[in-house]
Amino acid sequence: MEKMEVQLQENSYPIYFAEGFCGLGEALAACKTHPKIMVVTEPKIRQLFGDEVMRELAGFHMVWHEIPGGEEEKSLQTVAGIYEHLLKERFDRKSTLLALGGGIVGDITGFAAATFMRGISFVQLPTTLLAQVDSSVGGKTGVNLDGVKNVVGAFYQPKLVFANLSALKTLSDRDYASGLGEVVKYGILEGEAFFSLLEREADALLRREEASLREVVALCCQCKARIVAEDERENGIRAVLNLGHTFGHAYEAATHHVVFHGEAVGLGLISACAAAEYLGKDASRGRVTALLKKLGLPLTLPAGDEKTMLAAMQRDKKSEDGKLRFVLPFGLGDVRLESSVPPEAVRCGWEAVWK
Amino acid sequence: MEKMEVQLQENSYPIYFAEGFCGLGEALAACKTHPKIMVVTEPKIRQLFGDEVMRELAGFHMVWHEIPGGEEEKSLQTVAGIYEHLLKERFDRKSTLLALGGGIVGDITGFAAATFMRGISFVQLPTTLLAQVDSSVGGKTGVNLDGVKNVVGAFYQPKLVFANLSALKTLSDRDYASGLGEVVKYGILEGEAFFSLLEREADALLRREEASLREVVALCCQCKARIVAEDERENGIRAVLNLGHTFGHAYEAATHHVVFHGEAVGLGLISACAAAEYLGKDASRGRVTALLKKLGLPLTLPAGDEKTMLAAMQRDKKSEDGKLRFVLPFGLGDVRLESSVPPEAVRCGWEAVWK
Repeated sequence: MEKMEVQLQENSYPIYFAEGFCGLGEALAACKTHPKIMVVTEPKIRQLFGDEVMRELAGFHMVWHEIPGGEEEKSLQTVAGIYEHLLKERFDRKSTLLALGGGIVGDITGFAAATFMRGISFVQLPTTLLAQVDSSVGGKTGVNLDGVKNVVGAFYQPKLVFANLSALKTLSDRDYASGLGEVVKYGILEGEAFFSLLEREADALLRREEASLREVVALCCQCKARIVAEDERENGIRAVLNLGHTFGHAYEAATHHVVFHGEAVGLGLISACAAAEYLGKDASRGRVTALLKKLGLPLTLPAGDEKTMLAAMQRDKKSEDGKLRFVLPFGLGDVRLESSVPPEAVRCGWEAVWK
Repeated sequence: MEKMEVQLQENSYPIYFAEGFCGLGEALAACKTHPKIMVVTEPKIRQLFGDEVMRELAGFHMVWHEIPGGEEEKSLQTVAGIYEHLLKERFDRKSTLLALGGGIVGDITGFAAATFMRGISFVQLPTTLLAQVDSSVGGKTGVNLDGVKNVVGAFYQPKLVFANLSALKTLSDRDYASGLGEVVKYGILEGEAFFSLLEREADALLRREEASLREVVALCCQCKARIVAEDERENGIRAVLNLGHTFGHAYEAATHHVVFHGEAVGLGLISACAAAEYLGKDASRGRVTALLKKLGLPLTLPAGDEKTMLAAMQRDKKSEDGKLRFVLPFGLGDVRLESSVPPEAVRCGWEAVWK
């Protein structure tokens, strides 16, 4: 079982990388989380891992809380359901909420943990690639409202993250590839060395080879942890983690989430490269597109309505006073938050992926 | 305009004491709050102070959001209404939520500010005595759920508190006296010097004399600020601020909030003194009762059902593993958090106020 530390002063916490859930009970005890645990998960995830998790946590007081899967469940109503169950089971401040599943389960559960009795212990057991490399690390929690993503939320750090790499073998090809969209984002953020490693490892990653996964997931987590440590509450540099996301969120919204999050981020990366090109910067769009293609990610989507797209982007949390702010790659390893990006650059971004 | 500072490292903020709202615009500018402001208030509070606040904030972009008054409005639904209005008015992360009113408005608005886009600026304009001496200071925000008080919430500090002492003259006698219940709590916390000052100033306080109010409100805020600075997230010492509140919350619940919060706290102080007596401690119950009486606070309430009361107290956020934890006065200036208080002591507490 490998381990790395996210350095956030009094909010620091470990990320464990393991095959299976063996060692989870020990890890929880080491982090002194409270022994009264509610596990929030989706029915199909519980079916896959429920017995194993129960065996590992035999010494704990455990209650299960199931929520239906899907982005539309990421709502205040779902969070209220968790609160009500916690009250019914007489959970108090010395309790732990454990998120078992992908990014949606993690975001919802984290927000419930942040706000139940003004904050109880929170543990992430990410089972998707997207959650392991991105959403489980960094403490962003939240739910959607009126179609706006993560508009209600809190910064709230888990006590620990336990990434079971074997769980990635249970993902559908499409879910797995979607996670690779975020992985490519880290390649652009980190620069040439990591990006070319991804190019070399693309086949092994597609085959979900253990050694490859272990290296790449850990490198992504290290990249994210380093950036979050610099700027926990996104007052500045942390915004670069949103590379591909402003375009991506709009693609998700425009397709009513027919496009998966990681797929949308992949498309968003192409758009961000194209927008940067409009501004005269070379962000290696060709290599980015080729890597996404090799990893099985979509490179195009049906053209959307410009007005709707623009409105969706202006509602993005990064925008200020209605001005569009974008994270753009000026090159591999050189990613910046740009204010006042002209609408023409944004249109170039769309046109790079619209068929 | 006087000013004091609540010391919380990067979360430090000033409390201003003023007559009227003159100087509010300046204070906001000094704290660099964002100029796009939504004021959350109740209709009757807006009627009293709306024009004055508007004049003072003429240079700001302002939107009003009215919520009906009352404890039953302290719900997730009310918070969702604020989120929706913020989205409709295109408020972004660089916006400010301003709470104008009593503790309920402050708690709701603070929670909305803590969680909209993972946290926007928050300003408190407390207009009741209870809010000025207690709820507006310290960063506790939250709403009720299934009849449990403040079970959903966050620790979230305002950018500033602006206490308009003249506003206290608009309160009904009962609302004003209710606030004095919290003031007596600070007397017990601070000890002999402050407690005897309150005894001496009781008549002047009842007449709402300016000099007296200014001194007493500032001393209460100083006491609270000092304790909060030691323990922002209530891991220990801060719990003493809940003196009278475990009993008090149960009295509020048992009477369906027919008893006001500050009245319930006053009754809870008598109960806490009686419970401490059962444990062999002398907390000057006679002087506490006499002061509450002089200040116009109720000393008794109809007997409640013991089973319901016990259940309500076990749901208190301070309780752990179903064990009752109480903040008890072992003497003036000597207040402690006691674990495993025997049920007989609790019964003594009830019987001291049940008629």
